[in-house]
Amino acid sequence: MVSDLARRLAVARGDEPADVVLSGGRVLSVFTGELLDADVAIADRHVAGVGPAYDGAERVDVSDLILLPGFVEGHMHLESTKLTIDQFARAALPWGTTTVVLDPHEIANVFGVEGVRAMLRSADAVPLDVFVMMSSCVPASPFESNGATVTADDIAAFLAEEPNAIGLAEMMDYPAVVAGADDALAKLRAIGERHVDGHAPGLSGRALNAYLAAGVMSDHECTTYEEALDKRRLGMWIMIREGSAARNLEAILPMVLEFGPTNCLLCTDDLEPDHLLEQGHVNDVVRKAVDLGCPPADAVVMGTLNAARYHRLFEHGAVAPGYLADIVAIPDLVSFRPEAVWKRGRRVSEGETSIEIAGSALPDWMRGSVRVRELAAEDFAIVADGSVRVIGVHPRQIVTQALVETPPMRDGHAMAAPESGLAKIAVIERHRNTGRIGLGFVRGFGTRRGALATSLAHDAHNLVVVGVDDADMAAAANRLRETGGGQVAVANGEVVGEVPCPFGGLLSDLAVEEVAARTHAIERAARELGTTLPSPFSAMSFMSLSVVPELKLTDRGLVDVNRFELVPLEV
Amino acid sequence: MVSDLARRLAVARGDEPADVVLSGGRVLSVFTGELLDADVAIADRHVAGVGPAYDGAERVDVSDLILLPGFVEGHMHLESTKLTIDQFARAALPWGTTTVVLDPHEIANVFGVEGVRAMLRSADAVPLDVFVMMSSCVPASPFESNGATVTADDIAAFLAEEPNAIGLAEMMDYPAVVAGADDALAKLRAIGERHVDGHAPGLSGRALNAYLAAGVMSDHECTTYEEALDKRRLGMWIMIREGSAARNLEAILPMVLEFGPTNCLLCTDDLEPDHLLEQGHVNDVVRKAVDLGCPPADAVVMGTLNAARYHRLFEHGAVAPGYLADIVAIPDLVSFRPEAVWKRGRRVSEGETSIEIAGSALPDWMRGSVRVRELAAEDFAIVADGSVRVIGVHPRQIVTQALVETPPMRDGHAMAAPESGLAKIAVIERHRNTGRIGLGFVRGFGTRRGALATSLAHDAHNLVVVGVDDADMAAAANRLRETGGGQVAVANGEVVGEVPCPFGGLLSDLAVEEVAARTHAIERAARELGTTLPSPFSAMSFMSLSVVPELKLTDRGLVDVNRFELVPLEV
Repeated sequence: MVSDLARRLAVARGDEPADVVLSGGRVLSVFTGELLDADVAIADRHVAGVGPAYDGAERVDVSDLILLPGFVEGHMHLESTKLTIDQFARAALPWGTTTVVLDPHEIANVFGVEGVRAMLRSADAVPLDVFVMMSSCVPASPFESNGATVTADDIAAFLAEEPNAIGLAEMMDYPAVVAGADDALAKLRAIGERHVDGHAPGLSGRALNAYLAAGVMSDHECTTYEEALDKRRLGMWIMIREGSAARNLEAILPMVLEFGPTNCLLCTDDLEPDHLLEQGHVNDVVRKAVDLGCPPADAVVMGTLNAARYHRLFEHGAVAPGYLADIVAIPDLVSFRPEAVWKRGRRVSEGETSIEIAGSALPDWMRGSVRVRELAAEDFAIVADGSVRVIGVHPRQIVTQALVETPPMRDGHAMAAPESGLAKIAVIERHRNTGRIGLGFVRGFGTRRGALATSLAHDAHNLVVVGVDDADMAAAANRLRETGGGQVAVANGEVVGEVPCPFGGLLSDLAVEEVAARTHAIERAARELGTTLPSPFSAMSFMSLSVVPELKLTDRGLVDVNRFELVPLEV
Repeated sequence: MVSDLARRLAVARGDEPADVVLSGGRVLSVFTGELLDADVAIADRHVAGVGPAYDGAERVDVSDLILLPGFVEGHMHLESTKLTIDQFARAALPWGTTTVVLDPHEIANVFGVEGVRAMLRSADAVPLDVFVMMSSCVPASPFESNGATVTADDIAAFLAEEPNAIGLAEMMDYPAVVAGADDALAKLRAIGERHVDGHAPGLSGRALNAYLAAGVMSDHECTTYEEALDKRRLGMWIMIREGSAARNLEAILPMVLEFGPTNCLLCTDDLEPDHLLEQGHVNDVVRKAVDLGCPPADAVVMGTLNAARYHRLFEHGAVAPGYLADIVAIPDLVSFRPEAVWKRGRRVSEGETSIEIAGSALPDWMRGSVRVRELAAEDFAIVADGSVRVIGVHPRQIVTQALVETPPMRDGHAMAAPESGLAKIAVIERHRNTGRIGLGFVRGFGTRRGALATSLAHDAHNLVVVGVDDADMAAAANRLRETGGGQVAVANGEVVGEVPCPFGGLLSDLAVEEVAARTHAIERAARELGTTLPSPFSAMSFMSLSVVPELKLTDRGLVDVNRFELVPLEV
């Protein structure tokens, strides 16, 4: 039997026909930025040759097309799409994404290492290379009651066992790293010589030096030219983030224009399903970069080769002999809308349609993870008097404001005031059915009727319920109990919008089109309930994240994040 | 006990004083090309912080100096210097070289894997990071009788055992790789996911594609802009070579100026001891690049960060927190003559003087490897009549010409003709004392008296003797037998110049200054014997290399390299 390698060489030499020849196009060399007039000869999963006049069993005419490497997503949380990996691939492959590096932080918070392993296994049959940076901060905070803990030993064992687990994901607890806390250092040691993603918004000066000295190598939290340049100077790989929520490309791109694309790559971090389906993925970030004045070859390099090199994926990121045949055919260097995409030598999309992809095999034990008792309106009653702490929410910000207000009283209970924009918020522990509920007030959603609830809530993924009616709040929570989690909007006891996410309360079992449509619909339903805050479910998902200032709510109560301690509702 | 890492962070934060602070200088960021006004705080072996006003137990004023990363030699054969690693370090450290990636091809041809291991061990106590790409083609040719064979299994075992063995050295037998020969593919498979250096002079088109498709990732044999660009386009890392023999910088640099330094690094390949001692090392290649118009930051990047990244040495190549404290202080970006050098945080040179370095511990079993019987003049007699094949040598070329001449006859023997420039050449098997001697004629040395002999002769390192007097040829060979090898010039039975290399017949046990002085002296002695060819010992070292055209001599006889077969002396 002739080995893959021997046959690849025979194809490269022209002694045997390629499996597929992409013929007559121009290949963008990510090594020089040139467009080369060349055929691409594919042997099995690899590019064998890039040069004139190759023969192949299948010949695809790509005249007038430009061939790029498949795009490499530098850092994202799959869970933000609510999609299983097969459905993600169905949407992402036609955009030219052929490799993703995931931080499975949300699944890890619900199921720990076994959840991450199940996610990787579910990717095995999908024509998309899925790599995992192992989640580093699970749980993220002592104030949160999550479903699992990932220790340094867990990380070491997982990396040793899983070839596609390649490093340590964003070290969000940067204060612990900077301070040299034992647990943080143990995790950094657990990974041996692998690489470490950072997450250090605004970090500078000596704290930044300490963070880098610890071995953290990248950052995707830069929001200004100055911050990105400051970090790059000291060696950080700058992951320029342009996702559904945080959008930093326009601010940071001038640094690339001034100093070149070295040490820069692209990521989306969090991506809504409708965004992915309708606007694009890494290809759209490349498009925007070019639109903002970036030389196209530099933009492509950031979205392919640099991401691959940062992540030490040495067969990824180029259309060149010896590299994986992950190839995107586009008509021009303006729209970056692929006409066809090949993954490991196999055609996986034509226009906006991907090939059929085998159903993801997420196991049934990932269902039914919302473990709460049936709740009643009384569970949401707040006994308080006088001034209380209120979480102030601002559009498109995950930082909240600590307000003090005096809510209206009825029968000894502090009440929501829909007409003035004051709503109630509850966080219900849902992993171990402890019955713990944190209650409080929130201003900024604008909701005037009913309730919204979600089990997608950073980082512990307990149930977060925002509403102005206790019975509807109970109904919304109970609906998530029934369905195993997701997002729901309730009015007058009825479900008026819903995205079921039965896998861990995080991932849907529906097709991407359905998830996107339901995501649109539930936002519309929330607006019909008077909600004025844009992306209210996204905002809710950060209400219990007790590591981002200023005032947050967990199942244990209100957290003053600046003081990093629990505080009572009443002032 | 506080760990290294915890202390490094404390120093970075400014909570503890650094071990050393380099204060008041400007740091070249290889990530942006900027000069940063910053102190460098060193904790043990690492840079902890780069920023203003660090405190340290030792403060070194580097005002008016520029701090660069230590230079990284991308590819060289230590044996070309004839120095043990401690003596090499004594000369290279003051030039700012702090890391070298070696192909120990010559030692491997004499002693196999155990020789390479001994060389690595001898580097353990030397303040220089020595990495090895495991030699891939030992022996290099079936026509050569070398001392050891390195199999695919040997390579796999060695890489698994030795952390500083990081990949596979230049795959010189590129025809075998391109053809997909079993042995070549076995070696490529043996290294797992490690990287592979190339060696493919002039390779292009489909053969180049096949070479790359096999996984070869670099090349240091480019001699023209076009060749380098052709290879870079397809993904090869271009090692721009500027050594004692081959000098390709001027030809290739325009490619860097046009397309930037991505995928380009520097190497010297072969370096004479006097060149190293008097002219410099990687720093001098950087200097020349700048002199030829290269932006200084780009030149430094090629000599530091890019070499480190190509070789996947992720703690090397930058002055930045978390990187090894390998630092060069220079007065300007013109001369690149260091005023001081730090290796892993320790000052290793001041001006042109290195610190004392512990003697290399090459083991005694590496001595006495020239195993030949005592030779007599009669052993060099050539019985031939009429026209014979003659090796035509040209100055500074390793490609020879296949000539046909009719030498003068005496007593039935074909004789040298010193007055017309025809000399005799012998290659004597010296590893197993087989008594095999190949005899022939050579034109181009110009030697008119005596004989020159060397045990440094690619790739089998048998004894090569060139002379016009059979008794002197025997005396020269016998001298190498006595000393265990090296280079020698003999006239009238007396040694008139000598560089003893007792370790494997390749490496001297003398100090670098002595080796350089003797190298000068023996060249002078050769000239006094009438030799007109520049660098005759270097030329001799290629006379038996039966993979470089056109006509070569091994202990088995003359090799027509174009036909790749042994040919008789008489035509």
